Amino acid sequence: MPKANLLYAQSGGVTATINASACGVIETARKFPEKIGHVFAARNGIIGVLREELIDTRFDTPEAIRALRHTPGGAFGSCRFKLKSMDKDRAHYARVVEVCKAHNIRYFLYNGGNDSADTTHKLSQVAQSLGHDLICVGVPKTIDNDLALTDVCPGFGSVAKYIAISTLEASLDVLSMAESSTKVFVLEVMGRHAGWIAAAAGLAGKKDGEPPHIILFPEVPFEEPRFLAAVKSAVERFGYCTVVVSEGVRDVDGRFLAEAGTKDAFGHVQLGGAGPAIAEKVRAAHGYKYHWAVSDYLQRSARHIASKVDVDISVKVGVAAVKLALAGKNATMPIVKRTSDQPYRYQIVTAALGDVANHERKLPKDFIRADGFGITQAARTYLEGLIQGEAYPPYVNGLPDYVTLKNRLVDKRLSEYPV
Amino acid sequence: MPKANLLYAQSGGVTATINASACGVIETARKFPEKIGHVFAARNGIIGVLREELIDTRFDTPEAIRALRHTPGGAFGSCRFKLKSMDKDRAHYARVVEVCKAHNIRYFLYNGGNDSADTTHKLSQVAQSLGHDLICVGVPKTIDNDLALTDVCPGFGSVAKYIAISTLEASLDVLSMAESSTKVFVLEVMGRHAGWIAAAAGLAGKKDGEPPHIILFPEVPFEEPRFLAAVKSAVERFGYCTVVVSEGVRDVDGRFLAEAGTKDAFGHVQLGGAGPAIAEKVRAAHGYKYHWAVSDYLQRSARHIASKVDVDISVKVGVAAVKLALAGKNATMPIVKRTSDQPYRYQIVTAALGDVANHERKLPKDFIRADGFGITQAARTYLEGLIQGEAYPPYVNGLPDYVTLKNRLVDKRLSEYPV
Repeated sequence: MPKANLLYAQSGGVTATINASACGVIETARKFPEKIGHVFAARNGIIGVLREELIDTRFDTPEAIRALRHTPGGAFGSCRFKLKSMDKDRAHYARVVEVCKAHNIRYFLYNGGNDSADTTHKLSQVAQSLGHDLICVGVPKTIDNDLALTDVCPGFGSVAKYIAISTLEASLDVLSMAESSTKVFVLEVMGRHAGWIAAAAGLAGKKDGEPPHIILFPEVPFEEPRFLAAVKSAVERFGYCTVVVSEGVRDVDGRFLAEAGTKDAFGHVQLGGAGPAIAEKVRAAHGYKYHWAVSDYLQRSARHIASKVDVDISVKVGVAAVKLALAGKNATMPIVKRTSDQPYRYQIVTAALGDVANHERKLPKDFIRADGFGITQAARTYLEGLIQGEAYPPYVNGLPDYVTLKNRLVDKRLSEYPV
Repeated sequence: MPKANLLYAQSGGVTATINASACGVIETARKFPEKIGHVFAARNGIIGVLREELIDTRFDTPEAIRALRHTPGGAFGSCRFKLKSMDKDRAHYARVVEVCKAHNIRYFLYNGGNDSADTTHKLSQVAQSLGHDLICVGVPKTIDNDLALTDVCPGFGSVAKYIAISTLEASLDVLSMAESSTKVFVLEVMGRHAGWIAAAAGLAGKKDGEPPHIILFPEVPFEEPRFLAAVKSAVERFGYCTVVVSEGVRDVDGRFLAEAGTKDAFGHVQLGGAGPAIAEKVRAAHGYKYHWAVSDYLQRSARHIASKVDVDISVKVGVAAVKLALAGKNATMPIVKRTSDQPYRYQIVTAALGDVANHERKLPKDFIRADGFGITQAARTYLEGLIQGEAYPPYVNGLPDYVTLKNRLVDKRLSEYPV
């Protein structure tokens, strides 16, 4: 292929390490000036592509790009904007191809989760049909850890580490006060449909009595009497009870324990409040003094305590995506293949986007303890490798030295396309 | 004074660094075997003293004691149990003295906040009147940072650092998604009566437009229309709005925005829910998509990102307290005297407990910006020194290697005293 430009875009909920993937992409692309001209990044993901808002990354120094490795959030902006089927959103797909044509973009790298893999896959087909040679490669990312085929989704290991540490630390606090103060602590964690993050909290303790005493998974219908009995038992046996509850927990009738009532652009219900809802049930039944925490965005942006394994993987899938693009591997995605549990070892291998897109990976049944309130050794073996190592950011004046890029836009060449 | 035993107790809400003070106390006490026999620690604070539940720390190795420097929570247990006036609780005070007599305890070190300073002060008087030579020394500690005289309260610097970092990180997340998703992020922080922790969030940004865009202090009555206008203005100017709200925020009539309705042993109202309450007001008025987080105990137990300055201070007040005790300085407390802002420098000096007890230090008026929604340069100058340095704990297998002590109890010598 003749020399052409590369377009990278971030999609969906950002993570503590999505910028590490961006770093991998940009640093690698810059190593091939004979093949890749400009490295563009879409402003706010696919919305920026549709609007022809393309950032020219050449204005950012190698040091600034390097600093993406340790900067959370999405450095170019991300979005919640789903391209639906080709029938419904044909104009959008055509516009993306038009923008790529106008800016000689022949490599498109889309960094996201399930929906993004699907979009990238469809785009690879549309471009062909519209006569534009566009190599579309997915870059995996999601704290939900629900992408198919890959051993782990970049971004997940760092959330897992943060939640395991937070569970441990808060439990030490509660334990030391339980005699005369708070006896039940509830930590609400993210995970809309799959309990991967909730499961990670289980790493905080190993022995009987160590926290968390109860994990509430979205995979296990919430049975109030059984839950309340387990809380009481923990308080009586250990003096306190730490409960980790997934935002996606539902009752036996399938209703979320707490629904904010609003929906996002993908039609997903916006959740929040399972933690306080659970805490209130405990108070009403047992009268225990309780506290609850909802870590919300703190958990997925906590770059200050990111997993080194996760950061390394995130960089590597970015690197691999560029190499796949240059090799002409259209509609592919670099994924992680585990080769050893302990120590955790892996290779970056290649999957077909069509095999990844829209297959949600659930938490395996054998990861959940028989009583439904904890994790098994199989889960522990899977999770432990992913939180290894601390990839601390540099600090200036007591705070992490996170980078802000220039994000200078390229001149537009097309007419407006309102989104 | 002839050789005697020392009793150390932890009181009130624990912090990420109260065990660092315990480390300072025990390591220093062990250096004076000719003066100090056993170093006892009360199990669960003053409750353990009343129950004669004394831990003999000699069963813990120097390595275990050393590890207290990096272990959050209260290693011996703490409590919320306030000794009231000497008239009302004379029996309790007498019992404490009786326990000290029975175990040849002539040094009593009480590690806590305002209430504990008061208790220690009263105890020093009661012991005298009951004819037991008991040197009572306070060891300061409270994340609320509301002790009088001292430049800072051990434990506060680490919460300040955690909250500033969390505000920065979550804001980077929100900023990158704001075009098509969450526009308003609300972080609820601790601080019942004083806005010290809320103020620390202000360190996350310096320039106009940097987060947090709005801080809601307990010192500033909440005016809803003015707040909602400020949110709208931030969203329109910067694309998003980060709000940090203290749990202790009250409306113009003095009502907490969110009251859980329960009270703790000190008669304090248990708060929680100002964050979601604020978020809901924003949604109702503007319809912006929002998220909220309540960090609760996570903020005060986050030893993984403790301030090095705070850890150092916490150890040093423990060391100084033992030295004060050995010097016979009854009814004193080591406190921090600032000698330089930048770089932050300080000395450990001595205060009279009577001057510290029950004087609540409020956030100075000139620390709050004229509009009531942010911090001034004076606040920044005060706060910045306190979050300097990272005192990372050691990690094993991806998690901090926090220590659990043996906590072996001494044989009782007295009759039961039900508490």
